[in-house]
Amino acid sequence: MAENNEKDVVYIGSKPQMSYVLAVITQFNEGNAEEVVLKARGRAISRTVDVAEIVKNKFIPDIKIDDIKTSTEQMTREDGSTSNVSAIEITLRK
Amino acid sequence: MAENNEKDVVYIGSKPQMSYVLAVITQFNEGNAEEVVLKARGRAISRTVDVAEIVKNKFIPDIKIDDIKTSTEQMTREDGSTSNVSAIEITLRK
Repeated sequence: MAENNEKDVVYIGSKPQMSYVLAVITQFNEGNAEEVVLKARGRAISRTVDVAEIVKNKFIPDIKIDDIKTSTEQMTREDGSTSNVSAIEITLRK
Repeated sequence: MAENNEKDVVYIGSKPQMSYVLAVITQFNEGNAEEVVLKARGRAISRTVDVAEIVKNKFIPDIKIDDIKTSTEQMTREDGSTSNVSAIEITLRK
């Protein structure tokens, strides 16, 4: 799993912001990740920017936001119909 | 005001998504902008990504998302106390 440690992904959902902040800090500190990618869709996108900014400004000053990408993904609902949802990927790098 | 037309800003707030999509399209088509910057804070960040993706995928295929920046801004409440809020700037370019 050593390779996996170099690029870890944290999926941001609807939990409190701080649980994701802690997950990212843990990846960098205990997991020795050089890069952590935050991924989210829909309304969680705002929270994802919060998490990136809080980690950078309050906890690990020597990381930077290396890349931000947006995309559109297709979601399938329970009834089989589909709708589009925006997604974001924020790459934090030590 | 010709200079201003080359780089226009659309502030994304709590109005329906489509009113911002139309504002951006108008800047590119009638205002002849080469670059339109979408700016938002807090929860409107998710909507801002939606607006960028919708303009690019459904209305103006020849624009691209040129740059995405995040930051933290300090807000002052009515009682004089301050709090931090995340902000985003998405630059669309023809």
